[in-house]
Amino acid sequence: MNDKVLMAHGSGGRLSHDLIEKYLMPYLANPVLNKMDDCATIALNGRIAFTTDSYVIKPLIFPGGDIGRLAVCGTINDLATSGATAKYLSLGLIIEEGFPVADLERIMSSVSETAKEAGVLVVTGDTKVVDHGSADGIFINTSGIGVIPEGIHLSGTRAKEGDKVIITGTIGDHGVSVMAQREGLKFSVPVESDCAPLNGLVSGILSVSLNIHCLRDPTRGGLATTLNELAVQSGVGIQIYQDKIPVKDAVRGMCEILGFDPLYIANEGKMVIISAPEDADSIISALHENRYGKDAAVIGEVTSQYKGRVVLKTGLGASRIVGMLTGDLLPRIC
Amino acid sequence: MNDKVLMAHGSGGRLSHDLIEKYLMPYLANPVLNKMDDCATIALNGRIAFTTDSYVIKPLIFPGGDIGRLAVCGTINDLATSGATAKYLSLGLIIEEGFPVADLERIMSSVSETAKEAGVLVVTGDTKVVDHGSADGIFINTSGIGVIPEGIHLSGTRAKEGDKVIITGTIGDHGVSVMAQREGLKFSVPVESDCAPLNGLVSGILSVSLNIHCLRDPTRGGLATTLNELAVQSGVGIQIYQDKIPVKDAVRGMCEILGFDPLYIANEGKMVIISAPEDADSIISALHENRYGKDAAVIGEVTSQYKGRVVLKTGLGASRIVGMLTGDLLPRIC
Repeated sequence: MNDKVLMAHGSGGRLSHDLIEKYLMPYLANPVLNKMDDCATIALNGRIAFTTDSYVIKPLIFPGGDIGRLAVCGTINDLATSGATAKYLSLGLIIEEGFPVADLERIMSSVSETAKEAGVLVVTGDTKVVDHGSADGIFINTSGIGVIPEGIHLSGTRAKEGDKVIITGTIGDHGVSVMAQREGLKFSVPVESDCAPLNGLVSGILSVSLNIHCLRDPTRGGLATTLNELAVQSGVGIQIYQDKIPVKDAVRGMCEILGFDPLYIANEGKMVIISAPEDADSIISALHENRYGKDAAVIGEVTSQYKGRVVLKTGLGASRIVGMLTGDLLPRIC
Repeated sequence: MNDKVLMAHGSGGRLSHDLIEKYLMPYLANPVLNKMDDCATIALNGRIAFTTDSYVIKPLIFPGGDIGRLAVCGTINDLATSGATAKYLSLGLIIEEGFPVADLERIMSSVSETAKEAGVLVVTGDTKVVDHGSADGIFINTSGIGVIPEGIHLSGTRAKEGDKVIITGTIGDHGVSVMAQREGLKFSVPVESDCAPLNGLVSGILSVSLNIHCLRDPTRGGLATTLNELAVQSGVGIQIYQDKIPVKDAVRGMCEILGFDPLYIANEGKMVIISAPEDADSIISALHENRYGKDAAVIGEVTSQYKGRVVLKTGLGASRIVGMLTGDLLPRIC
């Protein structure tokens, strides 16, 4: 086989089968997928969560991850926002003709490792090849199915006055690491993407609190956009405190130099949690026990003022309204 | 709003919300999707089918359909191969910067109409925008979830000696119509793509026969490749009769002129059925009652000879082995 992906690898014929058998199945094999039918059949009962995301990040490999890890984590985390335990993923590849097979293998290895870490199975897939110049290397779509435990009813509409707002760690790491990689910028302390599967972290907090109202992962558009979405969906105001929001020094420094606000930078391993105030301490304790939650902090609360808006209290006591992201800060960040 | 899709429409911020609210939701709105959470929550019980496909067809609009109709039908038909009734779809869009909003609306309208025809709901979605030159207009991924009725166990591994092989209609229509559109070729009688949702047709035959062993839709790679897959998966031989395979005159003519074999041309509204011989007549009768099955025919049988191979008996009584598609006949056909 050639060391580059050819148009005929997307033909559906002999070479497609070769590509799947030699370069995809070794990384993905499991009893459901191995049947090689046109769809997976699985047994499920109760309420399930279903989500989809396409990943078009540039560059494909960045400090702390690559498009393969990102595609698995992003969909697991979207499922986790409903409280669901991710179970099954689909994997749809769109590959540009001429893409190096070695890069495909690296990405598939990353898909495989991340799926194992998170305990999910890739059960169905699809591969398309487009002519050179009609895509940019590789785009990956993952859709996912998760099972929602009994009694869990999370939604962006459920934030209530008095609720606490928690972030599970430092913000801006993913966006800044990708931007630095893209632009060839160097840090004295390297910044890595936070790209991580948060299903374990979410099941941990759901086991200590039945009063979690909303979960959402602040990806594209950053923390500010996610909080705005929740404020609008729930018809409440959200007040956050600048001093309480965890930001790595290197991320803050890079943002200051480039004129970015970390509130708008994408994260790929963080969750915003809105919970009843009495449970905030036990949620923070549970988060601190998880490798992906050690910098978790309460950063604000839900108010009846400023309905549909997010207000930031600065270190000097001033207030400013923080809107949704307008324009596009960092294209192709996920 | 501009009449073209901008990078900022993929930012996750204000313009992403505008794009979704103005140009996607009007076509897709339903109670599950309207919650606008990061994933859909749905109640399901029993065995389900799960599948994914990305659509990269060129041109986006062709006689008999467009990428929107194709993306809905393709995934419904993959679910139907397990006997599942398609219920829920995800919709992942990758849009090239500068793509005309009017074209997006036409495609979304087509998604909406086809989903209504088939009785499925789009319950979750994602939109990414990539810079001009990094994609080719629009790529669509649909994943789907269907429910498998009790007692139905279909798989490509279940073909048995003596089984009949049925095709639900004429072959090659999709590939020839797309090729003609792409190359500006004219027919005296226009050939339209057969692109259609086959869930109703499949539930019809499952209601008249409990002895259907395999279903598969012969898309990329055509009928020949699909039959080869089934022969290999089941470890059987498959014998088909050239004179019995329905092909439209215009398709046959075009293939003769261009040196193509209709056996390798993609279909998007056809199903290969392998069933016990005693049920073939009642299956054909049920197919003939459906608008998408009126040209259905028995085209061959499963044999114990030529294990893992497909043999074609010509009109003159000669036999030839029909392999899987090698190379790529028609790139980007779906």
